[in-house]
Amino acid sequence: MDLKKYHQLLEESFSGFSNSLPENPSGLYEPIRYTLSIGGKRMRPLLTLIGAGLFSEDVTCALNAAKGIELFHNFTLLHDDIMDNAPLRRGKQSVFTKWNSNIAILSGDAMHTEAVRQLAMSPKEILPEVLDIFTKTALQVCEGQQLDMDFEKLSTVSIDDYLNMIELKTSVLLAASLEIGAICAGADKVEAKKLYEFGKHVGLAFQLQDDILDVFGDANKFGKKVGGDIVANKKTYLLLKAFELANQNQKDELQHLSLFSEEDASKKIEAVKNIYDQLGVKKFAEDEMHKQYQTGISALESVQVDSTKKSILKNFTDELMVREN
Amino acid sequence: MDLKKYHQLLEESFSGFSNSLPENPSGLYEPIRYTLSIGGKRMRPLLTLIGAGLFSEDVTCALNAAKGIELFHNFTLLHDDIMDNAPLRRGKQSVFTKWNSNIAILSGDAMHTEAVRQLAMSPKEILPEVLDIFTKTALQVCEGQQLDMDFEKLSTVSIDDYLNMIELKTSVLLAASLEIGAICAGADKVEAKKLYEFGKHVGLAFQLQDDILDVFGDANKFGKKVGGDIVANKKTYLLLKAFELANQNQKDELQHLSLFSEEDASKKIEAVKNIYDQLGVKKFAEDEMHKQYQTGISALESVQVDSTKKSILKNFTDELMVREN
Repeated sequence: MDLKKYHQLLEESFSGFSNSLPENPSGLYEPIRYTLSIGGKRMRPLLTLIGAGLFSEDVTCALNAAKGIELFHNFTLLHDDIMDNAPLRRGKQSVFTKWNSNIAILSGDAMHTEAVRQLAMSPKEILPEVLDIFTKTALQVCEGQQLDMDFEKLSTVSIDDYLNMIELKTSVLLAASLEIGAICAGADKVEAKKLYEFGKHVGLAFQLQDDILDVFGDANKFGKKVGGDIVANKKTYLLLKAFELANQNQKDELQHLSLFSEEDASKKIEAVKNIYDQLGVKKFAEDEMHKQYQTGISALESVQVDSTKKSILKNFTDELMVREN
Repeated sequence: MDLKKYHQLLEESFSGFSNSLPENPSGLYEPIRYTLSIGGKRMRPLLTLIGAGLFSEDVTCALNAAKGIELFHNFTLLHDDIMDNAPLRRGKQSVFTKWNSNIAILSGDAMHTEAVRQLAMSPKEILPEVLDIFTKTALQVCEGQQLDMDFEKLSTVSIDDYLNMIELKTSVLLAASLEIGAICAGADKVEAKKLYEFGKHVGLAFQLQDDILDVFGDANKFGKKVGGDIVANKKTYLLLKAFELANQNQKDELQHLSLFSEEDASKKIEAVKNIYDQLGVKKFAEDEMHKQYQTGISALESVQVDSTKKSILKNFTDELMVREN
């Protein structure tokens, strides 16, 4: 099957799921339907089906798990938006803004349970293993979000701590999506774990790319406002590396710039970017990104599956990696 | 085994669990340890072990499920306290007050995942069934909480809707605790479902008893401030029945009393109680409570297990039912 068919399978499956939800209490179920209807790239459930497709012609064995993982991911977004006070999600009102935080808490909890319910419908023989991977990963995602919130309050964070945080917050779920798909399709544990490693490192590369594109990306291609991380004083790889390399003057200037108000956003972006250029942090970030991507690719190459089969996964991630070039 | 041994088994198991949690990030794990250390009656996991004990000498098969159910229950309390803006829980600061709502949301989510993780370690043969009962029940608990919040905004609620709400919010988890315990111990599905019915009806009786004791209880024995529900205008069985039976004058008076401030609490309690007495709502509530309890007992009697074995469960619930007498 190709990617388009996987996509179609997922959308049919989500729309079936939405229709199967009870009408009432609407305060509980309407936000779930709303969230699923907004969509998103469905990256995680696609990875689950692709992971399954490497080991089995029929990927329907992994469909419940794929649904469960996407529901889990969407549940975390509902709660993250409350914690981050984020008005928008995928260009639409977040549930917390459209309704209120109580509704976002409780419908998020219901979505979390629905996620487990779907995952628990995976084939019986591999169910304990699927749930072991899933619950370990889900806890790590919570740890990542907690660390991210903790970092906001710290004056400085090491690059290693940052990489660990984004690994937990973002990469491990991408990695587990692939691994669970493979396990559902009957893959050997060792092979499935190689896919996990691929997903983990490629996920780190994606996040580093996001950090780079936020500052150096082409606004038209990137689809987001350039410099948003700078304006928000977000501790990205670039900023942390800059603090690591900066002399006292540059540190003072970065500190000073962090106090700029929203009105001086464009001035602030230009000045911070200027320091990034002086210190060459873009190159460091790109090197780290390429290193992570290559580590991922090596793991993928070692998976004992015909390489033509692996090309669908390679193409999928390559496309996500070259959005800018 | 007797109840004391079950209790001991659970406490050892929770303290082992708390010790096994990572130290960091402390914002995620400290609230979980705190919540478990406060304790509570452990009613649900006790029911799980009692349910298992009816069908097997060795109840350790149900210990992971028992832990999971208690973790799930505690997670719901963490989130309910945010939604209900409740400063206290079991006489101590709620997590939301001791830390903040973001911490309570995220550590609650982690606790939810830990709950699933424990349940997923149930014996492999019955795992799909355990998770099916658990996730269905977990969704119903969310529905119950949503209905409870919805009811606060309605001018009136029917007795049937109220009974449905408390069944979802409270009873089904007590019922599922017993059923899951039985399933873990290899019980036949039909027998396990009879225990579920017992738990559901007895759970309804417990809640009705709480409603009655809040107004008519002996403060010293009850351990709570009498009249709290009246002061908070809580839509209990008593208030809803009173509105059902009241003439226009009495309705107007109840409406008028609902606007009383906290300072006039004792006057308000006395006046509402007076209307309850005029209408005889206590008797209606007691009749409903006894009916539910008897329906539960009939279900228990039909369970095909030696009646001496059932006495531990009967004694446990009898004791909870006669707190006042």
